[in-house]
Amino acid sequence: MGVKEYLEDKANILRLYSLRSTTKAKSGHPTSCLSCAEIIATLFFNQMRIDPENLDYADNDEFILSKGHAAPILYAALAEIGAIPRDKLLTLREFSSELEGHPVPRVKGIRVATGSLGQGLSIALGIAYAKKLMNIERRVYVLLGDGEMAEGSVWEAINLAGKLSISNLTAILDMNRLGQSGPTMFQWRSEEYERRIKAFGWEVFTCDGHNVDELIRVFEAAKESDKPSFIIAKTVKGKGVSFLENVDGRHGKPVSADELEIAEKELQPKIRNVKFKPSNLVKASVRIEREDVDFSVETDYKLGDMVATREAYGRALVKLGEQNGKMIVLDGDVKNSTFTQFFFERFPERSIECYIAEQNMVGVAVGLQTQGFDVFLATFACFLTRAFDQIRMASYSRANLKIAGSHAGVSIGADGPSQMGLEDLAMFRSIINSIVLYPCDAVSSEKLTAIAAGYDGISYIRTSRPKTPVIYGNDEEFHLGGSKILRRSGSDELTIVAAGITVHEALKAYERLRGYGVNARVIDCYSIKPLDAETLREAYMETGRIITVEDHYAQGGLGEAVSSLGLTPRILAVRRMPHSGRPEELLAEQGIDADGIVREAEKMLNWKR
Amino acid sequence: MGVKEYLEDKANILRLYSLRSTTKAKSGHPTSCLSCAEIIATLFFNQMRIDPENLDYADNDEFILSKGHAAPILYAALAEIGAIPRDKLLTLREFSSELEGHPVPRVKGIRVATGSLGQGLSIALGIAYAKKLMNIERRVYVLLGDGEMAEGSVWEAINLAGKLSISNLTAILDMNRLGQSGPTMFQWRSEEYERRIKAFGWEVFTCDGHNVDELIRVFEAAKESDKPSFIIAKTVKGKGVSFLENVDGRHGKPVSADELEIAEKELQPKIRNVKFKPSNLVKASVRIEREDVDFSVETDYKLGDMVATREAYGRALVKLGEQNGKMIVLDGDVKNSTFTQFFFERFPERSIECYIAEQNMVGVAVGLQTQGFDVFLATFACFLTRAFDQIRMASYSRANLKIAGSHAGVSIGADGPSQMGLEDLAMFRSIINSIVLYPCDAVSSEKLTAIAAGYDGISYIRTSRPKTPVIYGNDEEFHLGGSKILRRSGSDELTIVAAGITVHEALKAYERLRGYGVNARVIDCYSIKPLDAETLREAYMETGRIITVEDHYAQGGLGEAVSSLGLTPRILAVRRMPHSGRPEELLAEQGIDADGIVREAEKMLNWKR
Repeated sequence: MGVKEYLEDKANILRLYSLRSTTKAKSGHPTSCLSCAEIIATLFFNQMRIDPENLDYADNDEFILSKGHAAPILYAALAEIGAIPRDKLLTLREFSSELEGHPVPRVKGIRVATGSLGQGLSIALGIAYAKKLMNIERRVYVLLGDGEMAEGSVWEAINLAGKLSISNLTAILDMNRLGQSGPTMFQWRSEEYERRIKAFGWEVFTCDGHNVDELIRVFEAAKESDKPSFIIAKTVKGKGVSFLENVDGRHGKPVSADELEIAEKELQPKIRNVKFKPSNLVKASVRIEREDVDFSVETDYKLGDMVATREAYGRALVKLGEQNGKMIVLDGDVKNSTFTQFFFERFPERSIECYIAEQNMVGVAVGLQTQGFDVFLATFACFLTRAFDQIRMASYSRANLKIAGSHAGVSIGADGPSQMGLEDLAMFRSIINSIVLYPCDAVSSEKLTAIAAGYDGISYIRTSRPKTPVIYGNDEEFHLGGSKILRRSGSDELTIVAAGITVHEALKAYERLRGYGVNARVIDCYSIKPLDAETLREAYMETGRIITVEDHYAQGGLGEAVSSLGLTPRILAVRRMPHSGRPEELLAEQGIDADGIVREAEKMLNWKR
Repeated sequence: MGVKEYLEDKANILRLYSLRSTTKAKSGHPTSCLSCAEIIATLFFNQMRIDPENLDYADNDEFILSKGHAAPILYAALAEIGAIPRDKLLTLREFSSELEGHPVPRVKGIRVATGSLGQGLSIALGIAYAKKLMNIERRVYVLLGDGEMAEGSVWEAINLAGKLSISNLTAILDMNRLGQSGPTMFQWRSEEYERRIKAFGWEVFTCDGHNVDELIRVFEAAKESDKPSFIIAKTVKGKGVSFLENVDGRHGKPVSADELEIAEKELQPKIRNVKFKPSNLVKASVRIEREDVDFSVETDYKLGDMVATREAYGRALVKLGEQNGKMIVLDGDVKNSTFTQFFFERFPERSIECYIAEQNMVGVAVGLQTQGFDVFLATFACFLTRAFDQIRMASYSRANLKIAGSHAGVSIGADGPSQMGLEDLAMFRSIINSIVLYPCDAVSSEKLTAIAAGYDGISYIRTSRPKTPVIYGNDEEFHLGGSKILRRSGSDELTIVAAGITVHEALKAYERLRGYGVNARVIDCYSIKPLDAETLREAYMETGRIITVEDHYAQGGLGEAVSSLGLTPRILAVRRMPHSGRPEELLAEQGIDADGIVREAEKMLNWKR
C-alpha cells in the first residue's frame, strides 16, 4: 500500500465531504466535485509544495479553482491538509460561514473569488508571472471545467501564457463531458482540446482523470516542460456514486438525505485508511508584505500649461514607480494613448503588454496583486466595459487594483462613440468598495493617481483625451472624498458641480454668468466616489440650486450620485446619440459645454424670478 | 488589361480616397486602410454579389469591417460602387456626416457599428447563420486586423462557427504586423494564426494580401469549402505610400497636406483607368421586412400561485414564438435556469445554444437581428456583465435585442455573489435608448416580456430566482413607462417604491405599518426605464416621503433613477459585501426586506413627528 492507495483514499474522503456538505446545505454542485476528486487529491497530497499553516506565504505552490462551483471539494482539501478545521465543512453556504457557495478569499489558501467561469486561468497566469518576478520557484495550478473552455477569456490567457512561455503554470481540464444544461461542445473528445491548446504554444498531456498513477505521471512531466502545460483529464461527472455517474441533468443539485446514505455505503468501503506520509508539505517562509511606500507625487506645472490629464497620469506612474519597487503596469496595446508608455519605457521589466485582450489583462492584474504587487492597468474607458465581469469578480476577490480609463466622453471627438467612455462612471460606481476619481487638470491628475496608488481596493481614474489648462498650483492637496470650490462669493445664486473636462466649461460659464450679474459657486467634484457630501449639501443649502455637468451618460454618473445625497440637481449629461465631430461641437450638442450650463442656469433662475 | 489591373486600379483609388478623407478630417487611420486596399477592392469589385442600390436587402453578400478604424476605405468602396455619393467622402468625421470615424449603420451597406475590436466575427457569424435560416445562398465576409486576434471574443466566434460548420462565412485577416502601440504578438508569422484557426475547425488559406491574383484564388477556394474559411493575407501597413510602408508609430495618424501631395504623386501614376465591367454586381430583391406580429400574451395564473418570474418569462417566450416565425432565442448553457429551455424544446430550429460564451452570444444576436429576426437572449444577470462592451456597441448598431438576465440580486441565496446580478440595472440603464423592465410576479413577467418583444431597440428584463406569489389578475395591463399603485389611501404618509422581489417585501411592510396605524402607498415600479415619472411625482407630492427598495447595488439602479426625477427618496439597496446565505437572511442583512422597509419608514416618520 503506497501513494496510489493513499491518494485514492483521499479522493474518496473528499468525495464524502463534498456530498455531505452540499446535502446539509441543500445546495451546491456535488457532481462537479466528484469528477475532480482524484485531481484535487493528487495536487494537495502529492504534487503541490504547500505549507498548510502558511498558505498565504509567497513560497507555496498555488491553486486556483477556475471551476468555482466545485468549491466544496476545495474546502474539503483545505480541511484535510489541516488548513481549516474539519467541522467548518458542514457550514457550507451558511450565512455566517466563510465557506461560501463559490470561493472567496475569506480563508487562507483561497486568494481570489471564482465562480464566474473562464476567469481562473488569467489569474493563475498573473500569479505565475509574479512568482517569476519574485524569483520564487513555485508552480501555479489551475483547474478548469470543460464548459468554461468556451469562454474567450480562457483563450486570451492561453495565448499570452504561450507567448510568454510561462513554464511554471499547469492547467488541468476536468473533462467530464457535461455542462450545466447539456453536454459540452466536445464532450470527451480530448483531441479537440489538445489540438487547440497545442496550437497556442502549450505542452499538452492527456490522462484518465480518475487514475492516480496517470495523474502523477503527467504532473511530473508537466514540471519538466519549458512551456506552460495543460493536462486534459478525462473524467466522469458524478464519479464514485453509481446513480450520479455521467448522468445529465444533475448539475448543481445536491443529493437528498436518502441518496447520501446510499453514496456513503458506496464510498466508505473504498477508503482503506492507508497510512502514508505525504511528502509535498513544506515550510514556507516568505511573507507577502506591504512595504512602506511613499505614494505621494510632486508636480511641476505652471498655471495655464495645456496638458491632457491622460498624459499627466502617465508621468505620475513613473514617479510612483521610482518610489515603489513592487509597482507593475499593464496596458492593452494603447500605451501611447493612455500614456502608460512613459512607465513602459522607464521600467520595462515591470511593464506587461497584454495586447488587445482586456479581460485577461484584468485577470492577470488580479493574480499579480495577490502576491503583493501594486498593479496599475489602463486602456480606453470604453474598453474597460469588455472586462466588467472580471472587475466585478475582482471586487469579490477584495483585490487591490488601480484602473485608469482614458478617452472619457464625447470630448474625444472625431473617433466617435465606439471609442467614447460614456458609462464608465456608472460601471465603476457600482463596484463595491471602489473609489472613483476624475481629475480636470494635470496637477490633480497626478495627485489623484497618487491617491489611487495608496488605496487598498479597486480604484478608477478617468482621464481625458484633450489638453486642458492647469488650474491648480503644485502645492494644492487633494483628498479621497474631497472636492474643490473653485469659485464662491457671499451671494452665490446657484452651484455648478463639474468634473474632468466639464470643470473648464463650468469656469467659462461662471464668467458668462458674472457678466449677467449672477454669481455661481463652481465645484470641481474630482472625487465622484466617495462624494464630498458636506461641501455639496452646504452648497445646496446656501445657493438653493445645483447643476451637475458631466461628459458621461445621465445614468449612474456624477448627477445621479449627487442626487442620491438627497439633493435635486439639474443633471446635464450626454443624452443624445453620440457621433463623430469636433470636441467643442459635441459638448455643445449635448448641452454640457459653457453655453449649455448658462442656458440651464438661466432656466433655473427664471423660475425663481 | 483585365480583372487584375482593374482591381489594382480600384485598390489605389481606394487608397487615395482614404488618404484624402483622413487628411481633410485631420483625423483617422489611413495606414490601416492602405494595408487592406487590395482585399477591399477584390471583395467589392469582384467577389461579393451585391446590389449597390439595395444593399439593405437580404439577398446580398454581406461585409463586416471588424477592424472598424479602417472605416474610410469602406466608405470609399461604397462610393466606388455607387452606393453613396463620392462627394460625401470628404465629410468624414464631420459633425453632420453619416460617415463617422468608425462605421455606424447610418448608410446602406453598413449594418452594424464596429470600432471596438474583436466583435465583427461574432456579428458576421450571426448574419451567416441568418442567411441559412432564410435559405438565402449568400456569403458573409468579415475583415479583421491582426491586433484584434488577441481578443477572446474572436475565439468564441471561431469556436462556434467551426462547431456549427458555418460554411457561408469567410473571414480575412489583414496581417499587417503592426498594432497600435507596437508590433502585434505574431507579426508576419502566418503559421501562428493558421495553426490556431485550423485547430478550431476552419479551413485556412494564406496569400499575399496585395496580390490580386492570389486573393481571387483564395476567395474562390474558400467558396468551395464546407467549413468556415479564414484567409490570412500578409499585408503591409501603409502599403502604397513609400514613407508609410511598414513604419511603426503611424497608427491612427492622418498624413499632412504636404505628405498627401507626395502620396498622390506616388499613387496616381499607378492608376491605369482600366476599362472593365465588374461581374459581381447583381439585382437583389428580398427585402428585410417586419411582418405584422402579435406581440401580446395571455396569462392563466391564479392569484397566490407561487411561480418564479424567470419561469414565467420562459413560458412567455413560447407563446411569443407561436405567434412570430422570425423569433429566435439564444442562451449560454443556462437554459434550465433562465427557462429559455421551454422555447428550446418547442422550437429547436429557432434556438441557438451559444455555450458559455456570452460575448459571442450577444454578437451573434446582433448579426441575426440585422436580417429581420426578433432575437431574445438570456443568461444570469451577472454574466451579462461579460458582454457589456458588446451590448454597448449593439446600441450604436441601433440593434433590436431582447435581453433577459435571471438570478437578480442577493435573493438568489446560497450561491453567493459570483452568481448575483447586483449591477445589471445600472448597466442597462446606461445603454442609450434602452428600456429596463423588472417584473415582480408571473403575470407581469409574461406581459413585460411581450412589451420587450415589441420594442425596437435594446430591452432588458430582470428576472428572479425564487418563486413569488402571483399578485396580478390575468387581465391586468402593463405599459412601458407605467407602474402599478398596489396600495393607496386618502391618508398615505409615505410611498414605498419597489420592483421585482422587493414588491413582496413592500406589501408585507405595508401590512405591518398599517398595524401601527400608518398608511403607505406601495408602487410596483416595474418599468425602471422609462420611469412612470407622473405617478412617482404625484406620490411624492401627496405623501411627502419616498422609500425606494431594490435588490441591487445602490448605484445606478431604481433609487438613483427615482432621485434623478428631482425627488429625494431614501434609497434601500445592497450596500454591504454580499455573501452566501438563505435569501431571507440576505435580504434582511441588506435592509431591503419588510423589516428594513419598516425601520426606514419609522425613521422617516419620527423625523416629522
